[in-house]
Amino acid sequence: MSVPGPGYSLTIRIEVKNIPGMLGKITSAIGNAGGNIGAIDIVEIDRKHVIRDFTVNTSDEKHSATIIERLKALPDVRIVNVSDRVFLAHLGGKISVVSKYPVKTRDKLSIAYTPGVARICRAISQDKEKVFQLTMKKNMIAIITDGSAVLGLGDVGPEAALPVMEGKAMLFKEFGGVDAFPICLSVRDPDRIVEIVKSISPGFGGINLEDISSPRCFEIEEKLTRCLDIPVFHDDQHGTAIVVLAALLNALKIVKKNLEQIKVVVCGVGAAGVATTKLLIKAGVKNIIGIDRNGILYKGRKRNMNPIKEWYAENTNPCGVRGTLSDALEGADVFIGMSAPGVLGIDDLKRMAEDAIVFALANPEPEIMPEDAEPYVRIIATGRSDYPNQINNVLCFPGLFRGLLDCRARAIDDEMKLAAAHAIAGIIKDEELSEDYIIPSVFDKRVPKTIAHEIIRIAKR
Amino acid sequence: MSVPGPGYSLTIRIEVKNIPGMLGKITSAIGNAGGNIGAIDIVEIDRKHVIRDFTVNTSDEKHSATIIERLKALPDVRIVNVSDRVFLAHLGGKISVVSKYPVKTRDKLSIAYTPGVARICRAISQDKEKVFQLTMKKNMIAIITDGSAVLGLGDVGPEAALPVMEGKAMLFKEFGGVDAFPICLSVRDPDRIVEIVKSISPGFGGINLEDISSPRCFEIEEKLTRCLDIPVFHDDQHGTAIVVLAALLNALKIVKKNLEQIKVVVCGVGAAGVATTKLLIKAGVKNIIGIDRNGILYKGRKRNMNPIKEWYAENTNPCGVRGTLSDALEGADVFIGMSAPGVLGIDDLKRMAEDAIVFALANPEPEIMPEDAEPYVRIIATGRSDYPNQINNVLCFPGLFRGLLDCRARAIDDEMKLAAAHAIAGIIKDEELSEDYIIPSVFDKRVPKTIAHEIIRIAKR
Repeated sequence: MSVPGPGYSLTIRIEVKNIPGMLGKITSAIGNAGGNIGAIDIVEIDRKHVIRDFTVNTSDEKHSATIIERLKALPDVRIVNVSDRVFLAHLGGKISVVSKYPVKTRDKLSIAYTPGVARICRAISQDKEKVFQLTMKKNMIAIITDGSAVLGLGDVGPEAALPVMEGKAMLFKEFGGVDAFPICLSVRDPDRIVEIVKSISPGFGGINLEDISSPRCFEIEEKLTRCLDIPVFHDDQHGTAIVVLAALLNALKIVKKNLEQIKVVVCGVGAAGVATTKLLIKAGVKNIIGIDRNGILYKGRKRNMNPIKEWYAENTNPCGVRGTLSDALEGADVFIGMSAPGVLGIDDLKRMAEDAIVFALANPEPEIMPEDAEPYVRIIATGRSDYPNQINNVLCFPGLFRGLLDCRARAIDDEMKLAAAHAIAGIIKDEELSEDYIIPSVFDKRVPKTIAHEIIRIAKR
Repeated sequence: MSVPGPGYSLTIRIEVKNIPGMLGKITSAIGNAGGNIGAIDIVEIDRKHVIRDFTVNTSDEKHSATIIERLKALPDVRIVNVSDRVFLAHLGGKISVVSKYPVKTRDKLSIAYTPGVARICRAISQDKEKVFQLTMKKNMIAIITDGSAVLGLGDVGPEAALPVMEGKAMLFKEFGGVDAFPICLSVRDPDRIVEIVKSISPGFGGINLEDISSPRCFEIEEKLTRCLDIPVFHDDQHGTAIVVLAALLNALKIVKKNLEQIKVVVCGVGAAGVATTKLLIKAGVKNIIGIDRNGILYKGRKRNMNPIKEWYAENTNPCGVRGTLSDALEGADVFIGMSAPGVLGIDDLKRMAEDAIVFALANPEPEIMPEDAEPYVRIIATGRSDYPNQINNVLCFPGLFRGLLDCRARAIDDEMKLAAAHAIAGIIKDEELSEDYIIPSVFDKRVPKTIAHEIIRIAKR
């Protein structure tokens, strides 16, 4: 069972007799059942009764049910209502389209709409490049998904993917000031997705691809990059790669090893694993071994291959190692997991080199829990917010697109990705670095600013 | 030259010597050149100089240039800067995507994004209908255009159409509280447009088609209506039809004629003309004659026909009249123009029946100017804001979609359109009605509320 958190959070409205000791009984019952009590608000009070709202974080739905049952079992306690804070927060959606200024008078209407707007249309019609100054395109990106590979949920389809995309749009705005709009597609064929994104692109200044399954995501990104003059970025690939590289740069400073000398094992060669491998190679890493469900990828492997894996086998594993994850980890300096919960065992960790670095990024359950790994490794990072060293894409994408939009970049290149990783890593000064602090907090406001600044600097060159 | 208005509005920053009489010289120069002065603000003042901003409405770009020249010719006057208020208002676009609540703490992040959001995804994945409660789909519509028939501008393409669509999104929000997002398409083939709109529809609760040229708009709307379970509305057609019918209902009350008995001439059988004709027939009008560039449409006409015009010729003009606009107007009670500036002459008006009603809706220059028509007709309406009786679609679409979204309507039917027209007309009480007041102001807040209420009432039946 995981730690209670706001992801499972209830507001329980309870009516009790207005006599001393009742609050203690209730809070004890919740506490004994493992619930984490937040705010307690009085809703109504008279001589006989008190109604209070208890905000309680729980671990999962079963845990929530248990807590409610325990409360129901208390004498003189009536549960008026149980509301789920997460569902409440989603009612009607999380984002909204607003005017930048009100249209409350005829004057404003004449400026924003007819007749004034016609002059703006004519100006753009005469010089199409002006669409970048005089319309929402200046600051608007599309978040495109087909819902085929959503978070830890997998293929849930475009409707069920929408809450994640809305959340992403919120993060783009909160951390980067970027207007982002979710487009959830009900098609799967890569060529049709490319055609649709191309067709709707006139109003957007950038395209963020999201949660599209591998290997289709590679083809879609490549084709879109070729045919559009605005940046196209598959966050699951490059966002992850950039943040992993940032964390690795800082981790290596602590263990005093060089990118060129380390042996890295990448477990999981989907979108994130492949992109991370490519970026690590660009950054200077020479010895990377990739693992999929069939074991180590090597030149000449026949089972379960595809063009991406062929590329992978050709360009990694210089010593031609074969075998399982355990074989790969022999003497490895770094483990990067983008696979499944629990695939990494303690025996595996023992095979790694001294001062081992483990990034167990499977979400929400990592390849190994930090408390299990800690005795055997020097540095551990996960994707979770409830442990130190959270490797989270939100560190990258808002600042990256902020920079891309501000300098009207036409594409994203490797130099920009490397610069973004160095920008993130550089936020933490050498004297601040520690095994528990290799990557800044997602709330560190310096991060998006620094990334944007670096992107603009490189684009101008 | 048209009347100066905020559609051509300058802010002129002027530096003059700080001596008495200078302000009078400047305002006189602007006034004598026909400029309409609004606000005058002091920017900077010292013993020797004064810098002021003059906001001046002009008629067009040439007029603006003339005013600037006259000012430059004044002694001791220096023009520091001239800025165009309409262009300034468009810098960076007019709409923005915002979060409904801030994500400034880890708790909020856990609710809006991982891990909390996963439960919302799962809930929708198990019951797709929940996407209407738990996502932006509840209140979000797409404004779809290909930029092929924009305002009075024609085929300007998707980029140049965007400022109009952003303006429309502002109006949806301002008047209906509807979130609307512009999607400007770079394709023209009706089937491809249908496929794209269908593919992006999972995130939207409705589709507003906009400024798509005839006859493609008919096919696109019809096919989309058939394949989507959310309302599809081509505003240029039905929005116009509804507001025209509303104005006609009230105009007929003044002249005391019935829908069933009147003879109506519709000049221009594009998207708006055809839809208006269809709605008038549904409302009870028996005698409608349509006119295109080749004259009256009649059963058996061969020149310049297409399937829509065939339908038109079959279902209107019961007496089989042939000839020109002038022939059609013989004894007509109502003229509805959706064609081109100046096509209606005074001799034409003289042929009409007593208490003639003229809706000259070509925009921005009507089929006949109100001051020219007034001596010969009882009631005249235009699409312009600078004359009484403005027939403007903004009276309809915000309230219509407000109602459709609130009752989760799957489509729009004729009964709803008729009800919307009656709702708009009914805002003006019989005792308030006059030749100059047949249609409420676009700023009348009762209009969208009443329409929404009527739509919900009908949808529930």
